[in-house]
Amino acid sequence: MCRWLAYTGSPVLLSQVLYTPVHSLIDQSLHSRLGAETTNGDGFGVGWYDATPAPGVFRSIEPAWNDQNLRELAGHVSSHLFFAHLRAAIGSAVQQTNCHPFRHGRWLFMHNGFLGGFAAIKRDLVLAVDESLFPEINGTADTEVLFYLALTFGLADDPPDAVARAIGFVEACGRARSIEYPFQGTIATTDGENLWAFRYSTEARSRSLFFTRDVRALRQQYPDREILREVSDDARLVVSEPIGDLPGAWIEMPEASYGVVSKQGDQLLPFVPKPPSKAT
Amino acid sequence: MCRWLAYTGSPVLLSQVLYTPVHSLIDQSLHSRLGAETTNGDGFGVGWYDATPAPGVFRSIEPAWNDQNLRELAGHVSSHLFFAHLRAAIGSAVQQTNCHPFRHGRWLFMHNGFLGGFAAIKRDLVLAVDESLFPEINGTADTEVLFYLALTFGLADDPPDAVARAIGFVEACGRARSIEYPFQGTIATTDGENLWAFRYSTEARSRSLFFTRDVRALRQQYPDREILREVSDDARLVVSEPIGDLPGAWIEMPEASYGVVSKQGDQLLPFVPKPPSKAT
Amino acid sequence: MCRWLAYTGSPVLLSQVLYTPVHSLIDQSLHSRLGAETTNGDGFGVGWYDATPAPGVFRSIEPAWNDQNLRELAGHVSSHLFFAHLRAAIGSAVQQTNCHPFRHGRWLFMHNGFLGGFAAIKRDLVLAVDESLFPEINGTADTEVLFYLALTFGLADDPPDAVARAIGFVEACGRARSIEYPFQGTIATTDGENLWAFRYSTEARSRSLFFTRDVRALRQQYPDREILREVSDDARLVVSEPIGDLPGAWIEMPEASYGVVSKQGDQLLPFVPKPPSKAT
Amino acid sequence: MCRWLAYTGSPVLLSQVLYTPVHSLIDQSLHSRLGAETTNGDGFGVGWYDATPAPGVFRSIEPAWNDQNLRELAGHVSSHLFFAHLRAAIGSAVQQTNCHPFRHGRWLFMHNGFLGGFAAIKRDLVLAVDESLFPEINGTADTEVLFYLALTFGLADDPPDAVARAIGFVEACGRARSIEYPFQGTIATTDGENLWAFRYSTEARSRSLFFTRDVRALRQQYPDREILREVSDDARLVVSEPIGDLPGAWIEMPEASYGVVSKQGDQLLPFVPKPPSKAT
Repeated sequence: MCRWLAYTGSPVLLSQVLYTPVHSLIDQSLHSRLGAETTNGDGFGVGWYDATPAPGVFRSIEPAWNDQNLRELAGHVSSHLFFAHLRAAIGSAVQQTNCHPFRHGRWLFMHNGFLGGFAAIKRDLVLAVDESLFPEINGTADTEVLFYLALTFGLADDPPDAVARAIGFVEACGRARSIEYPFQGTIATTDGENLWAFRYSTEARSRSLFFTRDVRALRQQYPDREILREVSDDARLVVSEPIGDLPGAWIEMPEASYGVVSKQGDQLLPFVPKPPSKAT
Repeated sequence: MCRWLAYTGSPVLLSQVLYTPVHSLIDQSLHSRLGAETTNGDGFGVGWYDATPAPGVFRSIEPAWNDQNLRELAGHVSSHLFFAHLRAAIGSAVQQTNCHPFRHGRWLFMHNGFLGGFAAIKRDLVLAVDESLFPEINGTADTEVLFYLALTFGLADDPPDAVARAIGFVEACGRARSIEYPFQGTIATTDGENLWAFRYSTEARSRSLFFTRDVRALRQQYPDREILREVSDDARLVVSEPIGDLPGAWIEMPEASYGVVSKQGDQLLPFVPKPPSKAT
Repeated sequence: MCRWLAYTGSPVLLSQVLYTPVHSLIDQSLHSRLGAETTNGDGFGVGWYDATPAPGVFRSIEPAWNDQNLRELAGHVSSHLFFAHLRAAIGSAVQQTNCHPFRHGRWLFMHNGFLGGFAAIKRDLVLAVDESLFPEINGTADTEVLFYLALTFGLADDPPDAVARAIGFVEACGRARSIEYPFQGTIATTDGENLWAFRYSTEARSRSLFFTRDVRALRQQYPDREILREVSDDARLVVSEPIGDLPGAWIEMPEASYGVVSKQGDQLLPFVPKPPSKAT
Repeated sequence: MCRWLAYTGSPVLLSQVLYTPVHSLIDQSLHSRLGAETTNGDGFGVGWYDATPAPGVFRSIEPAWNDQNLRELAGHVSSHLFFAHLRAAIGSAVQQTNCHPFRHGRWLFMHNGFLGGFAAIKRDLVLAVDESLFPEINGTADTEVLFYLALTFGLADDPPDAVARAIGFVEACGRARSIEYPFQGTIATTDGENLWAFRYSTEARSRSLFFTRDVRALRQQYPDREILREVSDDARLVVSEPIGDLPGAWIEMPEASYGVVSKQGDQLLPFVPKPPSKAT
């Protein structure tokens, strides 16, 4: 439904990643090749980290391809870790509060996909959100509710566990309402230090997700690319659809898996939702 | 916080009521005299009835004073019953889904005021909304939740009773959370036939509310006013703040009261919230 | 670049024409088949005639496909003659004042295409606009300048002549600046009574343009279509790309031609730009 | 009509200047005390310099007081030289291309005031803009035309001379059209190094303009103010209306004068428009 991108590495101008490459993310707002929708014109958002404690978030309901303010911001803001998201709305309103990434404290969260039958299970889901977090839900998007469920289930302490429990809870609520495929999509979340990316769907036909090979290998393969010389060895891009024209640069994340990008090294692991225990 | 206007009578162009008079509603978007805020620039909405089953609703997050589309719409749409609302946001986001009037089927609902401590009681309130209505909540404004509570409590069958129960419920939830003054404001609602207007606040210092004297008397007083000659004998305006420059044209609705404008005759009655029964 | 539609006939709700048919104009905002661009998401506009002297115009910079206000307006406004336009911006800013249709008095004007090398000839063109009309240019789009040129050259008196002179002037200015193909596109204009539609391009490869066959013939061919039973015998649609799924309903307007739809009968004639006389 | 602010000094977060002080610029968007209009809600803009060659510009048609993106940007962007402007539109459309500051190369330009009888002289003015600059005029605001006149008259080489000639030209064109007071207002312009601020009106009753006293003196007067300790000795604010609650901090710029803030020292000089020479 949407397109997203997460960058971590040495600080770069957002524009170098968002606008410069062939088939850039901004191009994908008009002409996605792999997306469920070819046009992703129902708003966008970027979230970036700098020296201030919480990340900045810029969101708009305009299509990204012609947004002059995004172009200005991206040409003047550098970051070592940022998210960008293009929305193709399916159910909820086109409004800033429904644009990804969502933010809570130092955390960002974004999603390409949907909660199946969201209208039918929304009430069950929001009731499960921690009472202290409930007033912070500002919009009406399914992803925002999923984010607050993950926060409720301990995102700040153990992101893979919290996301597994949140999706497990969504699946349980969905099945109780006879929804065949309650969850679909890819998710990225970060605390400003580490990055987690998930690919999963109840029907085991998940939206695409790719990450870049090791930058050192890419530099050898493409010695002429300036951007590859500029970024640090540990730079990493995770995207819903490849950008640029670097054959061999992208590795597809397997179905039902998640990846961690951190200073302690990167990992790729299987993802299994955790259903709520019966006692609850 | 906001300014609103309700018209019922013979069909008139919206612009004749919204733009023409001195100190018009659109003027009030920039320079309110009686409002808690002098500027009401956080969006607006109009809802109008015509031959189609459900009312039309046009809402925008732009300030009304310079909105070209509102000017066009108002200059081309006639209606026998319409609502207009200017928003001065206090808590919830400036987005179309938070602009009044809210609509459900044939019903419109708008409000000037607020639910005190809304963040603290929002969860209690939305849980009380009928499960079948819950998915239709599209925004995050306190008034929309109040509307869905009133619908839950039977707005379609007995509006004064439903509004009294909704506000009574808000007060009960608020008091349970130690909120001193849970409700403040004036409300208008209509099914396209009859119009109900309420003025009430927990602290007994409610936002202002006015309605027009009998048109026949006004015509005698102001024989030169074209608009008064054009509208029918039963035309009635209810406004949060007087428009125009017709001294003696406006009657202030008393504290804690509500009015009904209908073909069966108009009424002015005391308003008393109905707390939830203890058994519930 | 854009998609447009003009309707004339018995009054219909705008939504019946804009939303109802398969491959409707609103669908074309997301998925055009014949357009130079598949996405037309840089704003839209509708202009409609009713009992008031000047047409109403509603324009927005949001994509049409998800615009709630367009949906409301179209569901409540009826008209015997209206224009709708979806914009895919190429050069000028995405802003309401650049959205079609443009209006002057009772006239509406819209365009799918462009003036080649507009930046280079804009100054020459605006200098040729009548001084009394100059201050009414509100935006920065090439089409608006073309409209004011046509008004300068007598649009109100003889539309085909004025459009031929305007395009002839554009071509002369363009050639003087070594622009190979100064004009491209289809144009619709109306005074609220008659409708003129033009198809022309300097390079003789013009954007597509279609009009409907006689409604009586279509009714025989498609006896089950409610819309065909509702509209009058003289109803006519002119579109940049066919809407609906009525094979045989559409006639393509030939290259370099224009059509007139009027109560005095419809005509299809060749279109030849008129270069400015050398004396001028 | 508008409110503006220019800051130069050691780099600070924009939010420290735009949001923090009592009666901040953002407050002034809702409640100006000295402005010709109390509400400045027809869009805003900020322009800032950093390490990249051209300044960044962020402009929006939303009122500044509730704009979430401005809040985010201001909380994450630091600059040693920036402009901020709140618009109260009088004639031209509310659209991003009419929001100040305007930019050309490294130059920024903003204005509080108006060109009297702009519609009558606009054609004369735009004809005088250098042909190579003409295509860069993106909006329809009087100030943008004034900026391009100043660029035509040599803004990049001698800003006071160019502004004097531009205003002199406006006055000459205005008088030729019997406009009594062709120019009103205050102007700020910068090349990213130096800052020029002008106060002038044909009728000698110019909009207000203030600048801060020497920071070292202010620190002695207000030893507790954190912001005064943070900024460099050469920090300077120029504002259309004082912000903060520092009595004695502001010096009003005299009628018909201009100031220069530069590393070569600050100056305050008389301003006299330069009429076009008769020979021209």
